[in-house]
Amino acid sequence: METVEVLHMNKGSGETSYAMNSAVQNKIISVTEPATKKAIAQTLCSNNWPLSMGIADLGCSSGPNALRVISEILEAVYTTSRRLDRSAPEIAVYLNDLFTNDFNNIFGSLPSFYKKQKQEKGSEFGFGSCFVSAVPGSFYGRLFPSKSLHFVHSSSSLHWLSQVPAGLENGRSALNKGKIYISKTSPQCVLDAYLMQFKNDFSHFLASRSKEMVSGGRMVLSLMGRESMDPTVAHSCYQWELLAQALMSMVSEGLVEEEKVDSFDAPYYAPCLEEMKLEIEKEGSFVVDCHEAYEIDWDGGIMESPSDSLGMLSSGERVARTIRAVVESMLESHFGSHIMDDLFRRYSKLVEDHLSTTRTKYINLVITLVRLS
Amino acid sequence: METVEVLHMNKGSGETSYAMNSAVQNKIISVTEPATKKAIAQTLCSNNWPLSMGIADLGCSSGPNALRVISEILEAVYTTSRRLDRSAPEIAVYLNDLFTNDFNNIFGSLPSFYKKQKQEKGSEFGFGSCFVSAVPGSFYGRLFPSKSLHFVHSSSSLHWLSQVPAGLENGRSALNKGKIYISKTSPQCVLDAYLMQFKNDFSHFLASRSKEMVSGGRMVLSLMGRESMDPTVAHSCYQWELLAQALMSMVSEGLVEEEKVDSFDAPYYAPCLEEMKLEIEKEGSFVVDCHEAYEIDWDGGIMESPSDSLGMLSSGERVARTIRAVVESMLESHFGSHIMDDLFRRYSKLVEDHLSTTRTKYINLVITLVRLS
Repeated sequence: METVEVLHMNKGSGETSYAMNSAVQNKIISVTEPATKKAIAQTLCSNNWPLSMGIADLGCSSGPNALRVISEILEAVYTTSRRLDRSAPEIAVYLNDLFTNDFNNIFGSLPSFYKKQKQEKGSEFGFGSCFVSAVPGSFYGRLFPSKSLHFVHSSSSLHWLSQVPAGLENGRSALNKGKIYISKTSPQCVLDAYLMQFKNDFSHFLASRSKEMVSGGRMVLSLMGRESMDPTVAHSCYQWELLAQALMSMVSEGLVEEEKVDSFDAPYYAPCLEEMKLEIEKEGSFVVDCHEAYEIDWDGGIMESPSDSLGMLSSGERVARTIRAVVESMLESHFGSHIMDDLFRRYSKLVEDHLSTTRTKYINLVITLVRLS
Repeated sequence: METVEVLHMNKGSGETSYAMNSAVQNKIISVTEPATKKAIAQTLCSNNWPLSMGIADLGCSSGPNALRVISEILEAVYTTSRRLDRSAPEIAVYLNDLFTNDFNNIFGSLPSFYKKQKQEKGSEFGFGSCFVSAVPGSFYGRLFPSKSLHFVHSSSSLHWLSQVPAGLENGRSALNKGKIYISKTSPQCVLDAYLMQFKNDFSHFLASRSKEMVSGGRMVLSLMGRESMDPTVAHSCYQWELLAQALMSMVSEGLVEEEKVDSFDAPYYAPCLEEMKLEIEKEGSFVVDCHEAYEIDWDGGIMESPSDSLGMLSSGERVARTIRAVVESMLESHFGSHIMDDLFRRYSKLVEDHLSTTRTKYINLVITLVRLS
């Protein structure tokens, strides 16, 4: 299964849409913001003050998060320019995501986005000097002309592999019985297949960006990861463990075929810093400037509040909605859309029970790389 | 009325969609192709063979025409490169249209487009060296960073004004009674308002492209126009005359309010070459390299054919569908969607009757400009 064909965030703005259920990704953008601001300032200063600056957001998705990131980046460019008493460079912003992403949704918000930028930041940030475009395609290949990017941002995207790990695809041998991601009970060959696919994908990612970025350009990568060398540690895979349990409960009631579960493996990998560093060193054109790890609540840390439509839900329901908005397109293409409501009801219950005893959280890694000359 | 808010080609791929009813625009792309090929070859040779080439299609729309233009342009770059035994430059293709254009539709066709390019033109035209992106916004303002474009193409778009001519908007004084565009019976002040709006818009278009294009870059503009200095000549306005007649027949039956027709004026202008040249000379950074005028059948020259779904329609119906796919979004926002079926039935009949006695055709102008250094 190629991710490019089946993965897109739930469209529109309804109850199960990504736009309404992206609190986790929003939280991750918040924790990534300091690294982004610092990297923008350093990029500007190290490039002899560029007249024109290419900025890419890889895996931008749609909904409010897509333009929020861009606002923050523009703000950082503007603040740095003002502090150093230089005029801000022209900025070309490239929003990237897969071909099936809802770019029309983003473009619909652009007129008010431009208007707001103009009001807040004066005419140098109006139509005259910030140009937003969309570049669809997989970031595991080339997306941009050579040396056209000064800054690259990617949040909540790089943990998606380009495909189900080679060797596990089509579930030929059903190596990962009853599971849909790495689990404590997965055989070593499953762990190896996942790591191999991640290494392969991440090396293609680095090689492509290496050609596209200018010397001294910076890249802030924010993704789900782990703090342990052990890929079966709960904070990196327990959300998938519970989703597998929900599926298996449907198997036991004859609602889903067991072999359907056996043959599904998520094209996802939460790496540890060491695994990433190894590929970065091997590729050779980037160095790690800094890195951080953040704990993120499964529901993005939304407080229970009866006045807020999401706050009225139980935390199990909030987590289920967040996960559903992201993985539904992928699960539907394998299991069919008819089981989705039931599946996520079961999942919500399992999450609720789990969180009542164990406050498992995600670990989000934020890594800043510099393109060497 | 600002065009940016109300104009988009009919979406999707149904009976009234632009995708299914763009034979006229397709024909216009065909007659524009020789000028495009020549201009691409000249641009490449005059720019010391660029390593990277920026190409924009302004008003790309959606459906099959959008990528057809790009295919032809890539073909021209490839052929020129091969003929001169040079390796083809990296190409950044920017597809532009208004914010409400259906870019998702284009992006859905991109994977097969890239695959086809790769197969036909070898790996140098695969993902590795042709990068397609979308840049939404009005081409009457800035869209791209300074000096980033080598070639600009625009077909069937520049005859759309940025707004209803200043002075006629909101129909305050109902100067153009019973008409929706320039007509033989329109008072001189209506003709003046249209010309003024065209001059104003086209000068903004030229000023923006002047900043965005490199010296020696070329621009091929293909648009509805006329061969006479008289803006009331039938080939430039009779399609609107008949649409006004269809609306007025609905007024006489009490189905549409007369003041609704009086207060509507299309944000459209079919200029003559002299009017364009005057603005080009005034702006000063471009010269006209060559120009042609072509007659285009109202239905795009589709032959009647019982084996083809469009060929089975009468020519009146074919013309009505072509016009509907383009102007429906604009008419709906003024008259409401409830009258559309009836309106275009009447229009189809009027067109059929007219064409049975007079073979009125459109005149399409194709003008190549060179950016001076």
